[in-house]
Amino acid sequence: MSYDTNNIFAKILRGEIPCFKIYEDDDTLAFMDIMPQAHGHALVIPKHPAVTLLDLPADKAAKTLQTVQKVMAAQKSELGAKGIVVMQLNGEEAGQTVPHLHFHLIPAHLSQLKRHGAEQGDMDEIKVLAEKLRAVL
Amino acid sequence: MSYDTNNIFAKILRGEIPCFKIYEDDDTLAFMDIMPQAHGHALVIPKHPAVTLLDLPADKAAKTLQTVQKVMAAQKSELGAKGIVVMQLNGEEAGQTVPHLHFHLIPAHLSQLKRHGAEQGDMDEIKVLAEKLRAVL
Repeated sequence: MSYDTNNIFAKILRGEIPCFKIYEDDDTLAFMDIMPQAHGHALVIPKHPAVTLLDLPADKAAKTLQTVQKVMAAQKSELGAKGIVVMQLNGEEAGQTVPHLHFHLIPAHLSQLKRHGAEQGDMDEIKVLAEKLRAVL
Repeated sequence: MSYDTNNIFAKILRGEIPCFKIYEDDDTLAFMDIMPQAHGHALVIPKHPAVTLLDLPADKAAKTLQTVQKVMAAQKSELGAKGIVVMQLNGEEAGQTVPHLHFHLIPAHLSQLKRHGAEQGDMDEIKVLAEKLRAVL
């Protein structure tokens, strides 16, 4: 799959559309999923234009996973998350909906996740969650 | 959660119980999941004694993700996998069943996965899949 520079996460990275940002560094961005599968559902993406994990150079993959770890720690400390499902879908055939590599960090039990990408969450609530996480990141 | 040295993956790492191995290096091991959620379901684990992703040092995390990428590439080339679900459960509260960090690499659509850890697969079929993957890894 070639990279579509008009996908929604590319636009977020370019600042063309807003997001509930929780963390950013030179290589990665973390923000809230606005179609959360559970309370506190966050996303971590590399800035590198990769569709799937196979498109991501090893050094960028390492940086991305470091940000995943940081955000998970904040979900535990700030949101009281006990279990966290980390999920990353590669290809439309896996259910990937936005063609820019992203890790889902979902503070919930696997059996209790809402359907992926199905329903917009409460934006006010998501904003508050983002602020809590951003405060420690 | 403190690390239980008697968990099943610790025993596999020590060679005390067998696995359908597909790849091994100094830091990681990859083998078939014998309770596959789809055809070709593989697992990648670090050798470092980590329960969750938060217990894994950054350098070991980087190595683990490199092995994830290698195995995914083999699932694509050898098994014809189109979409691959990468999933990693942190804590019993997320549904983690073996308390040693593991990445699930499942060549299927998210909506078509069998239930996690529910049913043993066809061991002869899994053995053949392991041999196909091991041949290129």
